[in-house]
Amino acid sequence: MTRTIGIALLGLGNVGGGVVKLLEDNAAAIAARLGATLEVRAIAVRDVDKAKRVVEVDRGLLTGDVERTVARADIDIVCELIGGTALAKRATLGAIAAGKHVVTANKALLAEHGAEIFSAAEAAGVDVYYEAAVCGGVPVIRVLREGLASDRVEALHGIVNGTSNYILTTMTETRRPFAGILADAQALGYAEADPTLDIGGGDAAHKLAILVNLCFGTIVDVTAIPTDGIDVVEPIDLDYADKWGYVIKPLVIARAHGDPASGPIEARVHPTLIPASWLLADVGGAKNALYVQSYALGPSLYYGAGAGMLPTAMSVVSDMIEIGRNIFARVAGAPRSTRPRPAQPRPLVALADIRTRYYLRFGVHDKPGVLGQLMTILGAHRISIAQVVQDNRTAAPEPVWVVVLTHEAREGDVQAALAEINLLDIVRQPARLIRIAGTSADVAGASGAT
Amino acid sequence: MTRTIGIALLGLGNVGGGVVKLLEDNAAAIAARLGATLEVRAIAVRDVDKAKRVVEVDRGLLTGDVERTVARADIDIVCELIGGTALAKRATLGAIAAGKHVVTANKALLAEHGAEIFSAAEAAGVDVYYEAAVCGGVPVIRVLREGLASDRVEALHGIVNGTSNYILTTMTETRRPFAGILADAQALGYAEADPTLDIGGGDAAHKLAILVNLCFGTIVDVTAIPTDGIDVVEPIDLDYADKWGYVIKPLVIARAHGDPASGPIEARVHPTLIPASWLLADVGGAKNALYVQSYALGPSLYYGAGAGMLPTAMSVVSDMIEIGRNIFARVAGAPRSTRPRPAQPRPLVALADIRTRYYLRFGVHDKPGVLGQLMTILGAHRISIAQVVQDNRTAAPEPVWVVVLTHEAREGDVQAALAEINLLDIVRQPARLIRIAGTSADVAGASGAT
Repeated sequence: MTRTIGIALLGLGNVGGGVVKLLEDNAAAIAARLGATLEVRAIAVRDVDKAKRVVEVDRGLLTGDVERTVARADIDIVCELIGGTALAKRATLGAIAAGKHVVTANKALLAEHGAEIFSAAEAAGVDVYYEAAVCGGVPVIRVLREGLASDRVEALHGIVNGTSNYILTTMTETRRPFAGILADAQALGYAEADPTLDIGGGDAAHKLAILVNLCFGTIVDVTAIPTDGIDVVEPIDLDYADKWGYVIKPLVIARAHGDPASGPIEARVHPTLIPASWLLADVGGAKNALYVQSYALGPSLYYGAGAGMLPTAMSVVSDMIEIGRNIFARVAGAPRSTRPRPAQPRPLVALADIRTRYYLRFGVHDKPGVLGQLMTILGAHRISIAQVVQDNRTAAPEPVWVVVLTHEAREGDVQAALAEINLLDIVRQPARLIRIAGTSADVAGASGAT
Repeated sequence: MTRTIGIALLGLGNVGGGVVKLLEDNAAAIAARLGATLEVRAIAVRDVDKAKRVVEVDRGLLTGDVERTVARADIDIVCELIGGTALAKRATLGAIAAGKHVVTANKALLAEHGAEIFSAAEAAGVDVYYEAAVCGGVPVIRVLREGLASDRVEALHGIVNGTSNYILTTMTETRRPFAGILADAQALGYAEADPTLDIGGGDAAHKLAILVNLCFGTIVDVTAIPTDGIDVVEPIDLDYADKWGYVIKPLVIARAHGDPASGPIEARVHPTLIPASWLLADVGGAKNALYVQSYALGPSLYYGAGAGMLPTAMSVVSDMIEIGRNIFARVAGAPRSTRPRPAQPRPLVALADIRTRYYLRFGVHDKPGVLGQLMTILGAHRISIAQVVQDNRTAAPEPVWVVVLTHEAREGDVQAALAEINLLDIVRQPARLIRIAGTSADVAGASGAT
């Protein structure tokens, strides 16, 4: 039995190199499980003559011609690892048009052009798999699509950007400020030279859009997802969080409201205070995790490496194996369960209408009456206070900090109160806002830890 | 589109009732995802006339005739929820012989007769799915079989018995002794009237046998898996564990040694000291979790409800959906990825040859020289000591405790040393032994928490 599946890799960076290495390292096991060999027959790269590669490859496999590669007769699966949304989109649609199955790790591509790509795939009768696009090596797409196929997801809390988690974890451990840790992470290769997508939350928003599509059957406009970066967090916020039993994590949050099939969807990306007792609080370093609340299963959590050469390649090659099985069973491209559920329009909850709890830090002049003024304005905006600390260290330089934890409040009310407060004479710097995960009930009871 | 898949349920206890309820509650979502209806057409029960059921069902569906039910022409999938290995085995083989696909949650059946059942299924060209058999609602079977299809599992640490975890968690929180907590758990319905399989480790051993088959491609004799129950743990052990930064969890452990395809497999079931920093240490109550170490992905963890009416039913119905998709794609029964990998004989590491670290508690007379005698014997058996505490509270009644944490040692050496020590005059009660998870290196570095 020497059946072979022909593979074209588009891109030979970190993940592409990982795919080549994993196909070699685990060749025997993969062949045993698939009953066939996955053979890389072409690798499209930007510069065919580049001297140094992540892995050694047969130079005869290299080509600069993406367009011809994706249409070659000896290719069954095109593996798109180019990144970005321009060439990657053309190449993916070209592969689909040529009748090739596609594996991609490209969350930006799917978040922004998923509808077009999946409908092209349906028309052409080919598979598009994308396990590596969310949480890297952790098979959350399969879990949600197949493992929980009979269930109904109610809410998601996820750590889906490793760089942000690495930086916040390091800040928590060292209390060093954000900028220095980012610079170190860049020097070590843990963060991109342009870290905007990671630390600004854009990468996480792409992944959240894919998760929302999968769990709630609706396509959301990524740019409509309220997204804050982690750069608002200062070491002093970690001190206060710690004092009250919280840690700060870079979360994506989604929740279905109202009718399970058509109600509005809440989706947001921001650094978040979570109770230290939650399992997500222990997801450190660059690791990812997805905490799912579903109707029948209740809480469940999926944890592991969200990035990295071999973990990401693992998901890509597992997708190839599944497509290979589909090909041999002659069901590749059949509408089994490979695509996100049929999209139906569901409204996104506007940021102003979100209800959650808030951590607010005010930098104020150190004089009597300040607390009264702050509390009066918050109260006038229907914001109920759970705890307040006023930092009255006599030797402290101004501003002194007033830190507030609120009960559940409406975001629009909170923003209006902060805008009013920021205009006060007593205020030395604009108020800082970090949202707190879960409702008061979640925090009291439904901890991920028990 | 009104395609229908005919379902027969064998058994209408907790899980069967959950299946009926979930099929009703999530009917619309399931129909949308499958493009068909899952219709329960028969429910085989022991006593058709029983007045009170877990859920209301149409009495016309009830039958006492398992043999006829599994062969009915209008049944596509037989769902075996009887439990045990006698009738369940006959019914399952009967269903397969009649050309029906099977979903089962029965770990004892698969652990003891899996080879026979899967080879009958292969011969008959039918699917056998069993997601609910391990970790209840957490889709670990799909994760290992498909999500990690391109990877190679190196080691597993799992909490797979909810009752044991509930009892040890409650002991840890309250420091009450084992027997009282077990009695309460039985009164609350969290533990069976006969709890032997749960607390003795037998249920966990069945699940471990299934995991070993899936991950390492070999069939192990369940009775050959070294298995200790959690009833050896006393509250004082939790005190010492806590003092040294450990918690005690009911673990299954498996690890591949030597050649990845043919080397020996280590598999064991016992209460285990694990570092409090591990994610598994936070898996409390009756929850389950599987911590997987694999070549490409590295560490990953899967957490959620391991038992309960709806969580278990969720896995069962997700299996039905997948079989339904296979039926419509005309690939049901095809050797895609539904079965454990082809079994090949791999030796099981004998208990005496296992190397791990040990927590040892000696109850001795309170007199000088005792420690020297103990240390001398341990040293003579090549057991190196990491820490010792001698409990010299003057007011303490005898026995006084000497507690030892060892470095990695060979189980056979440890058992020989304990046998020798237990014969000493100074010993007031036989030594207690609890194994410690991981190597010294694991504990120092590769924590699940970072």
